[in-house]
Amino acid sequence: MLVVKLGGGEGVAIDPTLDDLAAIHQGGERVVLVHGGSHETNLLARALGHPPRFVTSVSGVESRYTDRTTLEIFAMAYAGKVSTLLVEGLQARGVNALGLSGIDGGVLRAERKGAVKVQENGKVKLLRDDFTGKVTEVNRDLLAVLLERGFLPVLAPLALGSGVALNVDGDRAAAMVAAALKADTLVILSNVPGLLRDVADPASLVRVVKRADLQGAMALARGRMKKKVMGAQEALAGGVGRVVLGDSRGERPIRRALAGEGTVIE
Amino acid sequence: MLVVKLGGGEGVAIDPTLDDLAAIHQGGERVVLVHGGSHETNLLARALGHPPRFVTSVSGVESRYTDRTTLEIFAMAYAGKVSTLLVEGLQARGVNALGLSGIDGGVLRAERKGAVKVQENGKVKLLRDDFTGKVTEVNRDLLAVLLERGFLPVLAPLALGSGVALNVDGDRAAAMVAAALKADTLVILSNVPGLLRDVADPASLVRVVKRADLQGAMALARGRMKKKVMGAQEALAGGVGRVVLGDSRGERPIRRALAGEGTVIE
Repeated sequence: MLVVKLGGGEGVAIDPTLDDLAAIHQGGERVVLVHGGSHETNLLARALGHPPRFVTSVSGVESRYTDRTTLEIFAMAYAGKVSTLLVEGLQARGVNALGLSGIDGGVLRAERKGAVKVQENGKVKLLRDDFTGKVTEVNRDLLAVLLERGFLPVLAPLALGSGVALNVDGDRAAAMVAAALKADTLVILSNVPGLLRDVADPASLVRVVKRADLQGAMALARGRMKKKVMGAQEALAGGVGRVVLGDSRGERPIRRALAGEGTVIE
Repeated sequence: MLVVKLGGGEGVAIDPTLDDLAAIHQGGERVVLVHGGSHETNLLARALGHPPRFVTSVSGVESRYTDRTTLEIFAMAYAGKVSTLLVEGLQARGVNALGLSGIDGGVLRAERKGAVKVQENGKVKLLRDDFTGKVTEVNRDLLAVLLERGFLPVLAPLALGSGVALNVDGDRAAAMVAAALKADTLVILSNVPGLLRDVADPASLVRVVKRADLQGAMALARGRMKKKVMGAQEALAGGVGRVVLGDSRGERPIRRALAGEGTVIE
């Protein structure tokens, strides 16, 4: 059982990942794909005159501030556009992909964050009416039924919480899904080679992180990489064999990650 | 087995339909909801600077011209926004709704129209690169698996055809779904009381159409109503017991339609 998270940042390569997914799925492996969509969301939000706003929590983690309008833009970009492109691309490759947003069938349930303490211009502020959450539960049975029947579920990171749809972090959602399905491996693909000691230097790649060294890895991580390391930690704690942070760019990105290219966390 | 189509025109009432769906589903009836989204698509298309274009075929039926950009806008509005609002609303009412666009798991397969002959300013033109299609096949097994497990499938009218995602008509897609599931009734709800002899006069409602009189009904139908009558015809031909064209506005719109309020086609 393999869970793949494909990032949605600018420069993430989709076609090689879909080619690779198709080959792996046709080889008989059960796979779930969780996808991002942040770049598409930013483009759509700007085009609609409701530009994205990112906030940094008091613990130093950056996330998207999601008012109700942003949540709907998020749903349109993730569950509308990105999911359609991925499912269409997989179907064209002969894979019976099936897109679900986390609210569908309660695949993902979350705890709503509600008010978020953020730092802005050196001050701590309380932001209310935030439609973000943290995944607390995965509907394993629904995914199992689909996997048994040969479908490849494609999940958009929304979740149900307090009776509404919430934006949840894709990396950490993928970690929860991988844990619920007891995946052997969680591969997290983005537009960088993995965890870097120096973000400006691809040669500074950290090749292996042992579970005991996760705090050190967390200290190295910058920006979006923090969520990936948090996700890796949560996946391992949930029983996933290993997590690989790999690069989507280039041929066979998933199989390269499975062969150890990238940052292997175990 | 009941299939409900909820239109997406301006003025369609969502909450009473969701209340009614929840009551019917909780009463033990198996239900599939197929939804529209034309008004949301028009708003989004205009906001994104790619305004909608409607064309009239040589046989007099109006439809949306769907280039690739429009297809993506259509997917964002239908599978992203409308589906999220409906599933969220049903989940908040205790119904385990699950949104699928027709491309997911190949729920709907279609024949792509390709080049469409249209009339514009009195001339006949051939429009190419149109991403619309006509549903030819429904993945009944997938819907049956979901229905057996208590889910309420919420379908967005996209379909797979010639390896790509296509825009398909929601009323006719609902008819194909109802036929595939051998539904007792297909209820098509919109923002009018049903088929009217005079669109300006709600009192001119046609209460009953017998199958033998469908040609007459087709001649009365104007604009969007043509597709509903075509859908009704296809549903009856596919073995559906009856079709009711009902009004979404007001309490209990589905149960009122089931009680015969609207235009009953049988």
